Amino acid sequence: PQRITWDPIQAEKAGYKHFMLKEINEQPRAVRDTTLGRVSLDSGDVFLPDLKLSTEDLRNAATMTIAACGTSWHAGLAGKFMIERLARLPVDVDYASEYRYRDPIPGSLGLLITQSGETADTIAAQSEMISKGTPTLAICNVVGSAITRKAQGVITTNAGPEIGVASTKAFTAQLTALFTLALYLGQQRGTVTPDQSRHYVDELAKIPAKLEEILRVLDDRCHDLARQFSPASDFLFLGRGIHYPIALEGALKLKEISYIHAEGYPAGEMKHGPNALIDEHLPVVCIATKDPADPTSVLKYEKTLSNIQEVTARSGRVIAIATEGDHEIEGLVEHTLHIPAAPDLLLPILEVVPLQLLAYHIAVRRGCDVDQPRNLAKSVTVE
Amino acid sequence: PQRITWDPIQAEKAGYKHFMLKEINEQPRAVRDTTLGRVSLDSGDVFLPDLKLSTEDLRNAATMTIAACGTSWHAGLAGKFMIERLARLPVDVDYASEYRYRDPIPGSLGLLITQSGETADTIAAQSEMISKGTPTLAICNVVGSAITRKAQGVITTNAGPEIGVASTKAFTAQLTALFTLALYLGQQRGTVTPDQSRHYVDELAKIPAKLEEILRVLDDRCHDLARQFSPASDFLFLGRGIHYPIALEGALKLKEISYIHAEGYPAGEMKHGPNALIDEHLPVVCIATKDPADPTSVLKYEKTLSNIQEVTARSGRVIAIATEGDHEIEGLVEHTLHIPAAPDLLLPILEVVPLQLLAYHIAVRRGCDVDQPRNLAKSVTVE
Repeated sequence: PQRITWDPIQAEKAGYKHFMLKEINEQPRAVRDTTLGRVSLDSGDVFLPDLKLSTEDLRNAATMTIAACGTSWHAGLAGKFMIERLARLPVDVDYASEYRYRDPIPGSLGLLITQSGETADTIAAQSEMISKGTPTLAICNVVGSAITRKAQGVITTNAGPEIGVASTKAFTAQLTALFTLALYLGQQRGTVTPDQSRHYVDELAKIPAKLEEILRVLDDRCHDLARQFSPASDFLFLGRGIHYPIALEGALKLKEISYIHAEGYPAGEMKHGPNALIDEHLPVVCIATKDPADPTSVLKYEKTLSNIQEVTARSGRVIAIATEGDHEIEGLVEHTLHIPAAPDLLLPILEVVPLQLLAYHIAVRRGCDVDQPRNLAKSVTVE
Repeated sequence: PQRITWDPIQAEKAGYKHFMLKEINEQPRAVRDTTLGRVSLDSGDVFLPDLKLSTEDLRNAATMTIAACGTSWHAGLAGKFMIERLARLPVDVDYASEYRYRDPIPGSLGLLITQSGETADTIAAQSEMISKGTPTLAICNVVGSAITRKAQGVITTNAGPEIGVASTKAFTAQLTALFTLALYLGQQRGTVTPDQSRHYVDELAKIPAKLEEILRVLDDRCHDLARQFSPASDFLFLGRGIHYPIALEGALKLKEISYIHAEGYPAGEMKHGPNALIDEHLPVVCIATKDPADPTSVLKYEKTLSNIQEVTARSGRVIAIATEGDHEIEGLVEHTLHIPAAPDLLLPILEVVPLQLLAYHIAVRRGCDVDQPRNLAKSVTVE
């Protein structure tokens, strides 16, 4: 049964031209509300009482299986990096539409990610997990939805009603929920120290203000870039590690609302094929952020820089998403959008915002129906 | 150290216009030579003496990690389906270029897939696995290459020297090697019955003749389709389950040699975004094969049919790859390329061939340098 718990007519655009732009701007609040009451700044502890799993269950878990669709699947891919790094729990991420057709070997724990809680494929994946005896958790934006009713444990994203078909604030709220889950699992499994916990909780608490800064500074920049790049027929989005799912999400936003053929690719895979596409007509958006305090993050950044140089050497036009204070990259690319620094696992919440704004302004400029793109529905309640 | 064990000048085109076309046509032999001496048609047993792992090691393995790049990565994704289904061993497939940067949790067994055995990223992934105590296996086309020297066990693909930059026969030989590995693991772990083994070995032995039939019948069809579709600027390739990696591979072939922006996507994910791209200008290649004897395969096929109907309802132009005798699909799509029936896990070896031929004829028609596409090298021995 599909339940709509909010009345779309009551949701207003609050002066914004489109719901999507309103929802992009609500992200600082969505992330804050998804963190609220779940973390202690003093102790670094995470509290997720609605998970309803014992410490023993969490300690004994050998693997986790995530199933989701579309934007939520991208959140799941990013979640894999968070959970494997903080909780040392191997994670397999599957398309919900595929899961039940591959006679899956269930993990110790199942996790469904869905904005509506009513996505038909995700409901079917959950049923498959439950039928094989795997307890399921849900990250969901709608309290009381079908998936939350069948889940053993729930983390509600408090993004509020999302009306635009292209998901924005639900996605950043999902990333936030996944981060708290990863940290919680790490605490229960003893794979993060109290110092690390305090550090991460402290950094998480700073994200909403950083989102506000991005929205304040980059909206005009993305508007200007849209003027230049809206005639493009194709785009590539590149990223490495946890930034690759964000490249996929940036490409999906542009596809959904502007009908431009945008594709996300792992930066390191370009030399195994897609480099052949590069010429002076192809805009390439590269996520080249880093956490200067994290040597692995800096190493990945350096590898990404050399991927960028391969693109520019072939006359590709690069728009880079980079970290505040990184001036080295400005000399290499045509345009740089700077975002505030953060730990590598939290950067995705920040770096997706300029990609959303870029897609939005390009679609508006092309005269597309941003809130209701052709051929798509908000919640896909059919298979 | 990079060793080239064949002299490219000695390899001749044998009357073909390009090495790529010659290598496409060598696939029946490549698959036969990769199977030869490794299976018993009488008992169904698989023999892989160079694996050098005890039955106990294989029985106790809890997970497998595959790392590879480009086309070999697509083979790995397909291998995941084979190994999980036949040996009930959960498999994680990673980009070799990413693996060492994510502080990976090693599986019980590592598997590297590489044509040359000298791919820098894959060598680095192997070192990471070995440093974490994980024994590595290699599927490789070059005896004595760097990766085979460090691997505990090897399955050599006997595809012979591959000169075209776009990999073709090495890929089908990799799929063949992965299938024998999956069946071997299943036999050692007791997850396939002797009857199933005999059935699968029998079906594997029939693949070379089926490849010959495809080459005989479909080359002209693909040549004709190229005339119609070579002006397209973009393509989508769709598939489900084990056919999704083949959709990715079909898209990569077209990207590499024709410079058309081709993208592979899981068929069931289209409604979560990419459907917005569909219009009368976008050719969509759908892999809609099935094994009529396998209910799961038929179910997936039916779901794919409804995805195809979503595309045609939006005026998308569909080229379907379908199973011999499937006339239902012909009424739904613009063009159908039929291939012989086979078990679901073996269909990839067959269905990729028309995709290779389509890419080849489109690239030739566009005047591209098929054997040496711009911006690419045959073995990527730098990071």
